[in-house]
Amino acid sequence: MPHSVAQHVDEARLWRRHMQLARHGVTAAGGVNRQALSAEDAAAQRELVAWGDTLGLQASTDSAGNLFLRLAGSEPGAAPVMTGSHLDSQPTGGRFDGAYGVLAGLEAVEALIEAGIRPRCPIDIVAWMNEEGSRFAPGMMGSEAFSGVRALDQILAVRDADGVAVAEALAQMPKYAHRPLGGPVQTYIEAHIEQGPILERVGVPVGVVTGIQGKRTFRVTVRGEAAHAGTTPRAERRDALLAACGMVKALEAEFSGADEHVMFTVGRFVVLPNAPSVIPAQVVFSIDLRHCDAPLLARLGERIAPICEAQRGRCDLSVAELVNAPPLDFPLSVRALIAGCARELGIAAIDIYSAAGHDARQMHTVCPAGMIFVPCRDGLSHNEAESAEPAHLAAGARVLAECLARLAA
Amino acid sequence: MPHSVAQHVDEARLWRRHMQLARHGVTAAGGVNRQALSAEDAAAQRELVAWGDTLGLQASTDSAGNLFLRLAGSEPGAAPVMTGSHLDSQPTGGRFDGAYGVLAGLEAVEALIEAGIRPRCPIDIVAWMNEEGSRFAPGMMGSEAFSGVRALDQILAVRDADGVAVAEALAQMPKYAHRPLGGPVQTYIEAHIEQGPILERVGVPVGVVTGIQGKRTFRVTVRGEAAHAGTTPRAERRDALLAACGMVKALEAEFSGADEHVMFTVGRFVVLPNAPSVIPAQVVFSIDLRHCDAPLLARLGERIAPICEAQRGRCDLSVAELVNAPPLDFPLSVRALIAGCARELGIAAIDIYSAAGHDARQMHTVCPAGMIFVPCRDGLSHNEAESAEPAHLAAGARVLAECLARLAA
Repeated sequence: MPHSVAQHVDEARLWRRHMQLARHGVTAAGGVNRQALSAEDAAAQRELVAWGDTLGLQASTDSAGNLFLRLAGSEPGAAPVMTGSHLDSQPTGGRFDGAYGVLAGLEAVEALIEAGIRPRCPIDIVAWMNEEGSRFAPGMMGSEAFSGVRALDQILAVRDADGVAVAEALAQMPKYAHRPLGGPVQTYIEAHIEQGPILERVGVPVGVVTGIQGKRTFRVTVRGEAAHAGTTPRAERRDALLAACGMVKALEAEFSGADEHVMFTVGRFVVLPNAPSVIPAQVVFSIDLRHCDAPLLARLGERIAPICEAQRGRCDLSVAELVNAPPLDFPLSVRALIAGCARELGIAAIDIYSAAGHDARQMHTVCPAGMIFVPCRDGLSHNEAESAEPAHLAAGARVLAECLARLAA
Repeated sequence: MPHSVAQHVDEARLWRRHMQLARHGVTAAGGVNRQALSAEDAAAQRELVAWGDTLGLQASTDSAGNLFLRLAGSEPGAAPVMTGSHLDSQPTGGRFDGAYGVLAGLEAVEALIEAGIRPRCPIDIVAWMNEEGSRFAPGMMGSEAFSGVRALDQILAVRDADGVAVAEALAQMPKYAHRPLGGPVQTYIEAHIEQGPILERVGVPVGVVTGIQGKRTFRVTVRGEAAHAGTTPRAERRDALLAACGMVKALEAEFSGADEHVMFTVGRFVVLPNAPSVIPAQVVFSIDLRHCDAPLLARLGERIAPICEAQRGRCDLSVAELVNAPPLDFPLSVRALIAGCARELGIAAIDIYSAAGHDARQMHTVCPAGMIFVPCRDGLSHNEAESAEPAHLAAGARVLAECLARLAA
């Protein structure tokens, strides 16, 4: 292998850091519950900054709670090359979703340092605030604030289920040198586990991500009336749960009639007062709808409100759209760079489309952006059993290190 | 009105006590959240005992957390006449469900005292522990332990959603003189708001309860697999929420095909991990099924497991029956006593069937038992807007006072 940078990527060190990071929020089943802006998230940030300190990287945070570690470049005014992902997880998440992109960035930078390379541009490793959106919905908050896709004020006002605002939770997080929000970025490359089964099935360690499928999310609120389960005549009931279940099943029927790549998920479903002998007064549920085809996704999304309306019975209904992110294609220049580096390193790679959303979606609006995927076991993600091979993680980090070295030269 | 006891029932005092008791757990909407064995429940018990103290009533508690206030009789060994209900409420409950039965008992006893009547038998006012079953399910715990319908050990081991056991919560409640669990009771009469619309519609202040409809409750657990909402192919999903919604809708279709008096409610529905972009791994939901006809209720209950089974798809399923309480008829002797007292007091009364379960169900297995209903506004109960007329509450208390005076003479 002719490339001195990639040679310094240390598979064992990269794996060890994953296992150390996974202790912050470790669950009984060996997964990770490290929700955004939690004590576990803060502890993971401190561990990352400590690793960066030993490499001489400068830590900074912006007002959206994004954390950056900078390797200085020889030309201080140059726009940075940026890489990273996120440290927060789903409530029953795994050890690699997000964490891999941050740790692969750290590994790549350490490889550059060990190879004695002094880059021209600074290289920033970023951990975006609240990618997952499980505690504060919707997610992608840090990269949306950075890219200007969503206003910071609006993000800071979002509250979790306990009524805690993002602004309040942010105040509990570690602070480093202040960095202004946003700013020019030369190129952004994010490494991530695939979260799907394709790379594993074809036996290839690296995916060059061509784009991200579109996603629309909705919050449906069904309001009925609380009443006694034994005494309230059937004709007089305004049962929010029966109405909501009817909506979910009717939506499922509609979307399963479309092509098989339509992804429809109701992940959150909250009932009030949620007592066995009380007719439910309210249900709030989430809808996550994804497809790679923009016109089809637009058309399917427009079906949601009328289908819910037809099922509401005697209940009141409101349908709010939270996210409408159309499908995107990453620029050919970044894809060619990633593919070229993999080829020169002798690492097999294929083009792959991302079914999951990533912070790279927002960075795509700021600068040329791209992504590197590595396989995960059984395609499983957002699951405590999420797993990946040390050799695959290292292969992705080698390609990333080579890309960063070239971009920052 | 020739009856000196009923004359001493004080409508204003009875209403005032309802309003004072409702402060313990008052909600923003003017309802009550006073769940079993909570700090609010304890405060309500202390207030009740303080009222009893001023009347010379002796407070005692048994090992199931039932609270008794005794008016001594002239024949100490005589089995007590018992009246009462419960102080706990649903999470979004009202000011009268349960509280009325206890306060009507106190008012009736105060009327006896003011009338200068010294009863032969002791009269016990009881506040049964956890009738509602919203925090610790299923409810009726205190009267089930008292009557031996359910073992005390089993009740003490039940845990709430935070993992707190009944035994632990009980240790935080006020303790008075210890009373052995159970024991002979001469007669039990419980006053309660109707929780249905009939008395209000016919314009009659008192209902003589003929019986209680049967009730079966179930807990259904659907286990799927947590996975990423964007990346997991449709054919590989094990979505517990879609399966559970299918079960609820199929059960609704089945039971709405039966006669209109079948009461089917899914009041509790809990999703894990309950995050918008994660396919649900588990749903646990409750089923509450009621009917006045024993063979029909038995037949409908047996349909639940096969209907859920047919909807489970690739998920795992378990269906557990929690309660199987057949319909019951109160003895004619007690019904005749209540109807006779109402008639002699010139208070209009009709026979009425109880669609809701009550502690009187359990006492029916211990001694002759009966119930007095009063109207509630719009038939609304298990709702913060629950309301009743002071004059109707007093009418029920007058009939109760007269019944107690005769039974204890």
